[in-house]
Amino acid sequence: MTTPQTLKGFRDFLPETMTIRNKVISTLKAVFESYGFAELQTPTLEYAEVLTGKYGEEAEKLMYLFKDPGNRAVGLKYDLTVPLARLMTQYPDLPKPFKRYQIQPAFRAENTQKSRYREFYQCDIDTIGTTSPLADAEILAVISDSLSALKFSDFTIRVNSRQILFDLIIKSGISSDKTFTVLQIIDKLDKKPRTEIEVELASKQVDQLQINNLFSLLDTAQPDPKLQEIIDLGIKLGARNVQFSPFLVRGLDYYTGAIFETIVEKPKIGSITGGGRYDQLIKTLGGPDLPAVGTTIGLDRICDVIADLNLWPNLPKSPAQVLVAIFSPDLYSPALKLSRSLRESGVNTELYPNPNIKLDKQLKYASAKNIPFIAILGPEEISQNSIKIKNMQTSEQQNLSLENLKNYLEIRN
Amino acid sequence: MTTPQTLKGFRDFLPETMTIRNKVISTLKAVFESYGFAELQTPTLEYAEVLTGKYGEEAEKLMYLFKDPGNRAVGLKYDLTVPLARLMTQYPDLPKPFKRYQIQPAFRAENTQKSRYREFYQCDIDTIGTTSPLADAEILAVISDSLSALKFSDFTIRVNSRQILFDLIIKSGISSDKTFTVLQIIDKLDKKPRTEIEVELASKQVDQLQINNLFSLLDTAQPDPKLQEIIDLGIKLGARNVQFSPFLVRGLDYYTGAIFETIVEKPKIGSITGGGRYDQLIKTLGGPDLPAVGTTIGLDRICDVIADLNLWPNLPKSPAQVLVAIFSPDLYSPALKLSRSLRESGVNTELYPNPNIKLDKQLKYASAKNIPFIAILGPEEISQNSIKIKNMQTSEQQNLSLENLKNYLEIRN
Repeated sequence: MTTPQTLKGFRDFLPETMTIRNKVISTLKAVFESYGFAELQTPTLEYAEVLTGKYGEEAEKLMYLFKDPGNRAVGLKYDLTVPLARLMTQYPDLPKPFKRYQIQPAFRAENTQKSRYREFYQCDIDTIGTTSPLADAEILAVISDSLSALKFSDFTIRVNSRQILFDLIIKSGISSDKTFTVLQIIDKLDKKPRTEIEVELASKQVDQLQINNLFSLLDTAQPDPKLQEIIDLGIKLGARNVQFSPFLVRGLDYYTGAIFETIVEKPKIGSITGGGRYDQLIKTLGGPDLPAVGTTIGLDRICDVIADLNLWPNLPKSPAQVLVAIFSPDLYSPALKLSRSLRESGVNTELYPNPNIKLDKQLKYASAKNIPFIAILGPEEISQNSIKIKNMQTSEQQNLSLENLKNYLEIRN
Repeated sequence: MTTPQTLKGFRDFLPETMTIRNKVISTLKAVFESYGFAELQTPTLEYAEVLTGKYGEEAEKLMYLFKDPGNRAVGLKYDLTVPLARLMTQYPDLPKPFKRYQIQPAFRAENTQKSRYREFYQCDIDTIGTTSPLADAEILAVISDSLSALKFSDFTIRVNSRQILFDLIIKSGISSDKTFTVLQIIDKLDKKPRTEIEVELASKQVDQLQINNLFSLLDTAQPDPKLQEIIDLGIKLGARNVQFSPFLVRGLDYYTGAIFETIVEKPKIGSITGGGRYDQLIKTLGGPDLPAVGTTIGLDRICDVIADLNLWPNLPKSPAQVLVAIFSPDLYSPALKLSRSLRESGVNTELYPNPNIKLDKQLKYASAKNIPFIAILGPEEISQNSIKIKNMQTSEQQNLSLENLKNYLEIRN
């Protein structure tokens, strides 16, 4: 190989990117755990028969299926839901409702595009084992708190119900065998004008009267009492910007009740969560007969947007708050001592490792690594029992005692 | 399939296990970052040619190599060092020294045994791009701080140098072409008595005089000045229990200078870290010519021991600090309000989702999930403007005002 490379659709996360990812993940985890959701992880590999025959042929073309060194048919996980179904069967005694979140990579050999990767992180929050509307409402509150915690304040949580859509299609006179065809077409209303959608519906033998009926019913639709209860409970739990959206379909066929989607307007991210109630899916996937409700959050997209738009400019770009420079080879020992003392006070401190390198090169190193401060102990500082501290961004520098330096660095960071 | 299963050597991490793992990982990360090591992650899959031809035939038998859906030859990562070498070539402009830590799964189709898994976590800390002894010393300090932070106080960090071993073998009269054979045999001294080791050496045509010479030289060996400097610097940086151990070999052939190993005596874990200086390896693995020093920490083993011996009994076993129970269906709303109010005060609060379930079943649920407290709002409490709080472990219960309840839960946890 000439130059070694990562596979297309796979990524290295360099330290600066990791800082953003870690902050996003810890922010989300804190919200999930505040509602009592607990973390779960499942293996990267599963038996192929756990993965296949679940989501249809198209999905299976994207799966990484292969033989392991012991000739077992295995596969990389395609999502977090199939392993969850497997797990619920394997551990029947888990107390229900089982409230879990899971943040792990999944693998799909898709065509790559912006914010779409072959190894991508899924971030799923689900409540398994209850049909209570409070569980649905809690998902709305978790989404709202999550986006607020990420400082995405301008969002709308769209809510609809599969049952409402089914009822309106029947009411409009369309025969029930066309339900999913019609839903799939309506689902494109976000991307296409209504006139185009009408043409598409007509091409599927839905007549103009039925189309008119359907749109007029959708335009004036109201939540049914069950969905209204979920919305009301969600708002009581603190969910903001919840909006009944009768045109919301959500692509996947497996939803059985409420469906949710979140659009973030600012920054302009678009759809960032998708979920709903799926009372049959876990059984269909080979698990026990357990109702469930949950959402997925688009973690990779959130991280990409925060990085691309520099939304968190104050996030430390380096784990070290300060670089202790080495003034000259003979002043190695006081620098080392200073680094230990700062570290023991809770200041993340990198000690420049080489006493034979000139000071200006050490400054360049601090700058390249985005370390915000550099501490220097030269002969003058040592004789005055002080430390020179330089702010790498403003170039300000001052001499401080050790105690004042500790306070200064702790306050600054 | 009758009952779906995980693959042998692969694990689900249920919530209680995740709690321990998360705590171990966050404890270690805090130590690594306090020295300025930054987190890196690389993909699960690499091109097969990145992975193969690096560690010999035996290693390759254990690799998960396969064709992806696009017919590319790919493989699951076997360790974190080969991807690091690939990365150092791909990003030549990373400021050096590049100090990174990486905590990610690696995959080896090994025979499974206790604390040895086919998907296992590696936890590597390395400084790339400097030969300074301070970098070696810092690894000793990081190991020491890490074990102290994990509350493993009874440990020994064994230190030796490949150069010292090479020199003593020559000095004892053994021909230099037998160096690695002799090292491999001496390496077993931890597991076998010296007499057996002598027999094994004799079987490799090392004569008795040479054997006697070698052992007497090893018994009286002293660190060379370079190793002594590393030890001294390590101690100055805060490393505890560092011990020169002339019999320490470390299996891998690629070490070129200092070698380290940590034995934890209490709890009786045995070897928990291994590392050293490897100035040629990154180049050998296809990377640029960069010296490096680092260590790996046995994360899975640490987590297993903490769980098996219940070393962290006070670690919360549930994300929720309190379960808000629902006294009766008509008292649903005050319970919901209470859950929100506690959550907003920073108390992780699970609300029981179903108002139609009897109170004693809700108590059992809290107990099964190890939620330490349960809060109950019955008619009496509501009329008194108080909340009943029950400690699930002691069965103590008392009525508190909302403010006092918040303080009580925050202080307790």
